[in-house]
Amino acid sequence: MAEGELKLLGTWSSPFVTRVKMMLEQKGLSYEYIEQDISNKSELLLRHNPIYKKVPVLIHGDRDICESLVILQYIDENWPKTGPPVLPVDPYERAIARFWAMYIDDKLLSSFIGILKATTEEAKAEKIADTHVALELLEGAFKKCSAGKDFFGGDSIGYLDVTLGSFTVWIRVLENISGAKLLDETKVPLLVEWEKRFLTVDYVNKVLPSVERLEEYGRALRLRITG
Amino acid sequence: MAEGELKLLGTWSSPFVTRVKMMLEQKGLSYEYIEQDISNKSELLLRHNPIYKKVPVLIHGDRDICESLVILQYIDENWPKTGPPVLPVDPYERAIARFWAMYIDDKLLSSFIGILKATTEEAKAEKIADTHVALELLEGAFKKCSAGKDFFGGDSIGYLDVTLGSFTVWIRVLENISGAKLLDETKVPLLVEWEKRFLTVDYVNKVLPSVERLEEYGRALRLRITG
Repeated sequence: MAEGELKLLGTWSSPFVTRVKMMLEQKGLSYEYIEQDISNKSELLLRHNPIYKKVPVLIHGDRDICESLVILQYIDENWPKTGPPVLPVDPYERAIARFWAMYIDDKLLSSFIGILKATTEEAKAEKIADTHVALELLEGAFKKCSAGKDFFGGDSIGYLDVTLGSFTVWIRVLENISGAKLLDETKVPLLVEWEKRFLTVDYVNKVLPSVERLEEYGRALRLRITG
Repeated sequence: MAEGELKLLGTWSSPFVTRVKMMLEQKGLSYEYIEQDISNKSELLLRHNPIYKKVPVLIHGDRDICESLVILQYIDENWPKTGPPVLPVDPYERAIARFWAMYIDDKLLSSFIGILKATTEEAKAEKIADTHVALELLEGAFKKCSAGKDFFGGDSIGYLDVTLGSFTVWIRVLENISGAKLLDETKVPLLVEWEKRFLTVDYVNKVLPSVERLEEYGRALRLRITG
């Protein structure tokens, strides 16, 4: 295990940052959180993530780790004995977890952004339908990964729980903005129950932004991107 | 280690398939290769990759593993003692390798596709400039990861070597199509030397397509996408 202080550069609204916070909390690791202004990038951010100039960045002593899914795996691999494992132990289960994490950040996220960007009812309906398809596939993934237990990670919160879980407040905000039920118990009953359990976890609630604050942010973002 | 026969669904022209072949060869694993027709997707492909319907798919007994970077990590984790490690052992070096692999499949690939899609000299010049920037960043990554040794993986071919190396023939084809030097020794001298060493490895040559065949394919693809 490498030594050194932990600092996290982030923004409060970013689900990619939230998932890293969740994992640091779960592992019980102390860190200094430094809020960034993405519209006016700091010298600190540019120095620690010169390639993408994005958050999150985990600074661990003299090491900079960027990209949230890479950071989650780093935390798991650098502190393997601290708390439950983030990724499953079995190589195939690890592959499945990595596959679905990529799916969440690719297809599910695209459908979310599509809802925000939609300027016609037709476009909005299409993106809501895409979101339902993506969530139904994730319902199947949950069934397989959890094997009847509480979380994607089994008895405890793991890689897929924080990857999808970091979007829970965003899902609520998108529901409020679009007027459509996205996490719908008639379509994804297992995910609805999973979310309820997930949101009872203390450190999850500690790091998730409030629906009210994020909705204000989301509505302003929507105005900006749709002109 | 899970038991079962190995089958790889692929297309000969896909760099994502080529990198999996390289890693299977390096590990000395026997597998049956089954060429797919992406314009007319087989029942086999649809059954084994119902989400993305894409190659590569590694079928290992009753397990289906999709997405090339996920497959490479599966091979490493399922056969850890067979041949040299694919990913570095150190958690930070692993994070760095994962970061740059994502960069290759995101930014470098986008710049390659941009060159193929360009319909004006101006657009082409812009995408060639993007490619030079991406390769110069990868030159820096090589310096850091190889630490003076032959490969990104140190003394032996690893995760980043096959991830970038699977594009070497495509780079040559893009150079021929665009008339621009991309892997330019005045800009990326270390990568030029790395490529020479990489291309002397027997199993690398065994699985890479020929420049001639891929150029014919690339020119036809370019006509299709530019209309």
